Amino acid sequence: MKRPIEFAHMLLKESVNEGDFLIDATCGNGNDTLFLAQLTGKNGFVHAYDVQEEAIMRSKELTKSQTNIRYILDSHAQISHYLTEDKIKHVDGAIFNLGYLPKSDKSIITKPDSTIQAITSILDVLTKGKRVVIVIYHGHEGGKDEKNAVLDYVKALSQKEFAVLQYGFINQKNNPPFVIGIEKN
Amino acid sequence: MKRPIEFAHMLLKESVNEGDFLIDATCGNGNDTLFLAQLTGKNGFVHAYDVQEEAIMRSKELTKSQTNIRYILDSHAQISHYLTEDKIKHVDGAIFNLGYLPKSDKSIITKPDSTIQAITSILDVLTKGKRVVIVIYHGHEGGKDEKNAVLDYVKALSQKEFAVLQYGFINQKNNPPFVIGIEKN
Repeated sequence: MKRPIEFAHMLLKESVNEGDFLIDATCGNGNDTLFLAQLTGKNGFVHAYDVQEEAIMRSKELTKSQTNIRYILDSHAQISHYLTEDKIKHVDGAIFNLGYLPKSDKSIITKPDSTIQAITSILDVLTKGKRVVIVIYHGHEGGKDEKNAVLDYVKALSQKEFAVLQYGFINQKNNPPFVIGIEKN
Repeated sequence: MKRPIEFAHMLLKESVNEGDFLIDATCGNGNDTLFLAQLTGKNGFVHAYDVQEEAIMRSKELTKSQTNIRYILDSHAQISHYLTEDKIKHVDGAIFNLGYLPKSDKSIITKPDSTIQAITSILDVLTKGKRVVIVIYHGHEGGKDEKNAVLDYVKALSQKEFAVLQYGFINQKNNPPFVIGIEKN
């Protein structure tokens, strides 16, 4: 059965078309950024966010053959600002990896308030039929608070406007990551 | 995004091969029985259980062109007995729809004890890499107790032996059904 990140990618593969505008809200090591850039192709475009220079550097290195990515060293809470700057009106897909940057300072983590602000900013301009996927790592300090805040937020999204899916393994130790998928109706 | 029953069928499609032996633990209207019979083909075989004659009749009608199904008017708690009777040593896939028979007597429902006994009987002889899928309807009277009993049971399955997945929509009213997928490692 698909691991959470594989399932998250499948949700995007099913809904993204070539030429779409996509967001990697947490570029981390750049694996998802590369995935998005390849998925939308050279006629599409990707905004990739991280607050850590280390993450942007790693991601740039991994995606150096791609020409359709703008890296943004800022909080994803500022998404609306950069959408306006690039005159982008609709988002056709986005991915979040919540937690900390692997092999790095574990005290620098995504936080509930900015995470929810970023999700809200994207949902406001998400194209109908398109998806936001969130992979929630929550085993670290602060992870449980963020997990609960995000779950409370997405469970309260209007059933008329959005379908909100949860996918994860439930017999594993050590707080395995799970996936939230949100599709705009 | 896939509805629960579509996702449940996908989990079986990914893991069942032609010629496999499959179980429909709750044949109901026969939709899943037909799906299993077609999936495994004429070289495979299906045992289909229901405690209600009405359900068996509806299912026989729907599957009358299939020759690879044995209908069993008995509780799925007796699965081991019928496997022995037909000299079947391994199960390659199974599906449960927990709840009551649609358009029928809503007081006749699947019950936690027999459900868990049936799941246990199948897991004991499940082929490695194969799956049991459970679609849990829990909006009816007694549904919550069964849901909790099944969740407690599957969450406690050894992570070494099984992967247990949960899939469902979490922003819907009226207790929507969700899916449990169990794969033997």
